[in-house]
Amino acid sequence: MLAQFKRPEKMDKKQASSEIKRLKNELAVLQQRAKVAKLPVVVLIDGWSASGKGRMISSICSELEMRGYRVHGSSAADMGETLRPQFWRYWRDIPAMGEITIFERGWYRPALEQQDETTQREQLDINAIRTFERQLCDDGYLVVKFFLHIDEQTQRERLQVLSDDPSTAWRATYADFLQNKQYNRLCRRRGKLMEATDDAWGPWHIIPNEYRKTGTCLLLRTLCQRLRDALEKGAPVPAPRTESTEALLSMPKLADVDLDKALDDEAYDEALDRERKKLKHLHGLLYRERVPIVICFEGWDAAGKSGVIRRLTWAMDPRGFLVSSVAAPSPDELARHYLWRFWRNLPEEGNVTIYDRSWYGRVMVERAEGLTDLARCEMAYDEINEFEAELVRWGAIVLKFWLHIDQDTQLERFTLRQQTPEKRHKITAEDWRNRDKWPQYERLVDEMLARTSTPKAPWVVVEANDKKYARIKVLKTVRKAIEQRLKEKG
Amino acid sequence: MLAQFKRPEKMDKKQASSEIKRLKNELAVLQQRAKVAKLPVVVLIDGWSASGKGRMISSICSELEMRGYRVHGSSAADMGETLRPQFWRYWRDIPAMGEITIFERGWYRPALEQQDETTQREQLDINAIRTFERQLCDDGYLVVKFFLHIDEQTQRERLQVLSDDPSTAWRATYADFLQNKQYNRLCRRRGKLMEATDDAWGPWHIIPNEYRKTGTCLLLRTLCQRLRDALEKGAPVPAPRTESTEALLSMPKLADVDLDKALDDEAYDEALDRERKKLKHLHGLLYRERVPIVICFEGWDAAGKSGVIRRLTWAMDPRGFLVSSVAAPSPDELARHYLWRFWRNLPEEGNVTIYDRSWYGRVMVERAEGLTDLARCEMAYDEINEFEAELVRWGAIVLKFWLHIDQDTQLERFTLRQQTPEKRHKITAEDWRNRDKWPQYERLVDEMLARTSTPKAPWVVVEANDKKYARIKVLKTVRKAIEQRLKEKG
Repeated sequence: MLAQFKRPEKMDKKQASSEIKRLKNELAVLQQRAKVAKLPVVVLIDGWSASGKGRMISSICSELEMRGYRVHGSSAADMGETLRPQFWRYWRDIPAMGEITIFERGWYRPALEQQDETTQREQLDINAIRTFERQLCDDGYLVVKFFLHIDEQTQRERLQVLSDDPSTAWRATYADFLQNKQYNRLCRRRGKLMEATDDAWGPWHIIPNEYRKTGTCLLLRTLCQRLRDALEKGAPVPAPRTESTEALLSMPKLADVDLDKALDDEAYDEALDRERKKLKHLHGLLYRERVPIVICFEGWDAAGKSGVIRRLTWAMDPRGFLVSSVAAPSPDELARHYLWRFWRNLPEEGNVTIYDRSWYGRVMVERAEGLTDLARCEMAYDEINEFEAELVRWGAIVLKFWLHIDQDTQLERFTLRQQTPEKRHKITAEDWRNRDKWPQYERLVDEMLARTSTPKAPWVVVEANDKKYARIKVLKTVRKAIEQRLKEKG
Repeated sequence: MLAQFKRPEKMDKKQASSEIKRLKNELAVLQQRAKVAKLPVVVLIDGWSASGKGRMISSICSELEMRGYRVHGSSAADMGETLRPQFWRYWRDIPAMGEITIFERGWYRPALEQQDETTQREQLDINAIRTFERQLCDDGYLVVKFFLHIDEQTQRERLQVLSDDPSTAWRATYADFLQNKQYNRLCRRRGKLMEATDDAWGPWHIIPNEYRKTGTCLLLRTLCQRLRDALEKGAPVPAPRTESTEALLSMPKLADVDLDKALDDEAYDEALDRERKKLKHLHGLLYRERVPIVICFEGWDAAGKSGVIRRLTWAMDPRGFLVSSVAAPSPDELARHYLWRFWRNLPEEGNVTIYDRSWYGRVMVERAEGLTDLARCEMAYDEINEFEAELVRWGAIVLKFWLHIDQDTQLERFTLRQQTPEKRHKITAEDWRNRDKWPQYERLVDEMLARTSTPKAPWVVVEANDKKYARIKVLKTVRKAIEQRLKEKG
């Protein structure tokens, strides 16, 4: 893709300057239109060392309204980033609706600096990149990717100029000169990566930048064009997914779950004590091995989620876990991809995040209440499976619990809550309304369990009519999953 | 303080257990009361290695509502934190109103691990700690600090137990054993630090924790007591400040500023080009030297802030600066100390944050519009000076510009904006209303300039009737401040 690239002619300097000026102003106008249209825009500026990425970003931003954009440089990942999945920092930094985020190199940097060129690893990276960009586009983001291209000789000359001036010498590093030495090999490799990620929803634009004015002019033209297109025709429609989805586990229907399982007090106390001790010990080992754990809890209202979560946390070091309670999204969250807020709270390696309700809200409450349109909810199944697959690829233990009770038990607990002053705040009119929709929710839950339970991120249905039984089952399941992982690690 | 500490008697085990249970439940009730009362609570758990900090935090959290608290472990600072002022991460993590944040060791860790025991450096650290805690208390935060105290022998035995068990051996580090070897010296040193920071608004509570149940019981009792006191009597009233405030620069009254200063087109173009080139070069050097810059812009509506900021950013690498536009606070911001949002956006070392309006809102618009009560606004002068002094201590260049125009010029510009379709969105009814309050604002600005201009964080009044003159003056001032700093650095 890069090697065969045909360079356009150098433009007349004066003519280019005046066009650049016009395009900068047009970009500012388009920014305002994007703001009104609530279009979120992601611009990626990749390119060779010394290809002029910094100056190009300056040109893009020159006339933009300052509170409407952010620039993220390509500094190496810091500790909090290194300890999280590869895409964590990019998810964290995606723009809100109507805003523009400019990433310098961004998520292509690790793929290119990656020395381990084994085909399998590379293919996984490429899949992850394509998934990330497609998920953004599915959600209405415009993704515009530029590669600033200069030839070997131009690069060599520019690096030389930088290193000859004492005040800029530090900017031309050994790695940059090495890049120049290996120019042809890297050119093929980058070209290959770009071909593999040149999707309809996130096409590459190669910008020859030997002549800066010509390059700037071409880039701004393209960027304006892409923005105009997105504003007029909407973001490009994603191609139908052809990748095979992961194998799914066969799950029971809720109606078939045996809710009579129970534990007596003595067995419970004994098991609770034993499991807590084991878990406490294992949590320390996981921390050492830097294995992250992501656990979701979903279930009927009053199924006992808080009680289970509390027992789980009693067994863990409080400095090593976070309970993320998912309530109605904040304005910041509503303005971004719906997975954004879950990405943000992912644990560091070795730590645990427990989601009290989770991303499954989209295929349950959001769908049942019509908060999100059907097509978007349908799409969410793929997104969720992809999200969890990415967590697994990162190395996380992923577990999802559905706490199941029957309608009679729920009624009993609702009534008890209403009669107990200090528990009354836990029950609302909405809980009673949801109860009326039980059959509808049951169908949705059955569908969710059937479509999102994978070997590496399984659903576990917990019989929760008896709270004691439920708590022990959860503790045991978590404990066994950790033991299994430690065994695999050897 | 520590060396003379008298240990209370060991409690009866059974009695302690039942009291702990009661106290945990009481704490949960107090948490709900704090939520209703919107009381933000900061709990610090410091203590010797192996004194049981983790378990103690577990006990505190055991019955708390999970979405109402957060625990922050004492991991070493990561890159993003290292590149920012010492207190940045703690400011970032302060609780919202009604919430509880538990810090393990927190801001006492660096002070104690600090090898450089020179008196001057230590005194600066102590001042910074006291200021941080006092600022929180001034804003209604409850700050509760515990030190878990165990004697030398208990520590030695516990470390030995940890290191004898292969699954916990990694938790007893060389540094921990070293601490035990130097126990007496450290005991004196810690005691001294605690005495120096044992303020009325943030007193230390020493909890003997040789006997865990006794320790837990004592700590929970104290914590409940402090919460009850705060809920009943309000947070402790800060003692009057006795520290001398920094020397202030003498500033002109706005009425005396000569607004006739102007530049012609030719002089402007020439100066703009020259200053931009110099600044660009200097920005690179600052990045290398890791000097951060914090610049505030305040001024009358239509004084030309955006135009000035744009010229300034044109001279900088877009990957190295952030323009933080300060608008009405979000709910998250309103729920915390008003300096929180400004702390969050501070640059990393070597980078620049430009605040388009700033923390001075409190002593201007918030005061003029009665958004904040007078006593709180009055307090803000000290807080602002302390905040900026902390930035200076960190090593930042701090500059504050007041863009000054007269009423006629403002009227002209307002009228022009209203007549220009693409500028009309920049003028609102509020701008016209503010105009009526000109004399009131002028008094407030004069007071602000007089009370917050210090040698290391000076105000610069910019004569801005002529936009060209104003832009060049700002660019020159920034450039000279950088040159001055680089000269000092040698």
